[in-house]
Amino acid sequence: MRLLGLDPGLRNTGWGIIEVRDNRLSHVAHGIVRADPKVELAARLVEIYDGLADVIARWRPQEAAVEETFVNKNAVSTLKLGQARGIALLAPSRAGLAVFEYPPNLVKKTVVGTGHAAKEQVQAMVRVLLPGAGEVATDSADALAVAVCHAHHRATGDRVARAVALAAQAGR
Amino acid sequence: MRLLGLDPGLRNTGWGIIEVRDNRLSHVAHGIVRADPKVELAARLVEIYDGLADVIARWRPQEAAVEETFVNKNAVSTLKLGQARGIALLAPSRAGLAVFEYPPNLVKKTVVGTGHAAKEQVQAMVRVLLPGAGEVATDSADALAVAVCHAHHRATGDRVARAVALAAQAGR
Repeated sequence: MRLLGLDPGLRNTGWGIIEVRDNRLSHVAHGIVRADPKVELAARLVEIYDGLADVIARWRPQEAAVEETFVNKNAVSTLKLGQARGIALLAPSRAGLAVFEYPPNLVKKTVVGTGHAAKEQVQAMVRVLLPGAGEVATDSADALAVAVCHAHHRATGDRVARAVALAAQAGR
Repeated sequence: MRLLGLDPGLRNTGWGIIEVRDNRLSHVAHGIVRADPKVELAARLVEIYDGLADVIARWRPQEAAVEETFVNKNAVSTLKLGQARGIALLAPSRAGLAVFEYPPNLVKKTVVGTGHAAKEQVQAMVRVLLPGAGEVATDSADALAVAVCHAHHRATGDRVARAVALAAQAGR
């Protein structure tokens, strides 16, 4: 089973592909879809969509996981991120993949062991869990982390993941 | 020249098509793309995208105009709207249309004469400006209003529209 993890952004959308075999995870590929900040918003969204469609066509993942967005105090940033996130959900869904969403604290808890982990800790643990990945930039590390989180929770189903997420939120 | 106006929403996305000939506007069609609120977010975004792609394929507009989102105090609503708005920008852009954005107060100022107009005033003026439209629900009326706004400002170019928009914002 191949899983795609996505960390959406209007400038950089991180992506990571992992493979799950008998509960063992392995790294397949990762990268960043970049959108030119100098072009109009609609054209940037097309760049993100086409970039993700290419990744999906090339690596043929069967399911996708996207980090739920942490709602920012800055409403303008939240709106921008929402637009990019809409594209990150649409691209795999239109390609026929089931798309799952995980809150950031559950991703961190699954990968690092605590919902409060720093980006660098996530990055370090992704290298430990997926030794084949090598050097991974933070956007791609976050994407691989969401994929790892989905690998851990997909067996137990979305409802359990949500319950864990709610418990984690209540306990933070 | 056929213009498409869009009023994006996660539940209802209003659309309206008008024709401009020698500075005269006429109504072509309007409607609402509905997304089932009971399905997963990614599937809803696919419904919106496919619905808009159908509208564009059927009515063949040459340019599109989308209302800029009024950033809400409620960050969760802003994020949701952002996701729907990303799709409303992507669909016409991927179909090869130039996509323009107008702030809500400029749309109201152009159609009603004041940036503070109520939804009902916009609806009433759309009927006056486009007598062929008949009964129009508010989502579609807003979409037709954005198209009318674009028809008025496209000749003078995006930069002038932005200048007017900024002046309108400063004066509100």
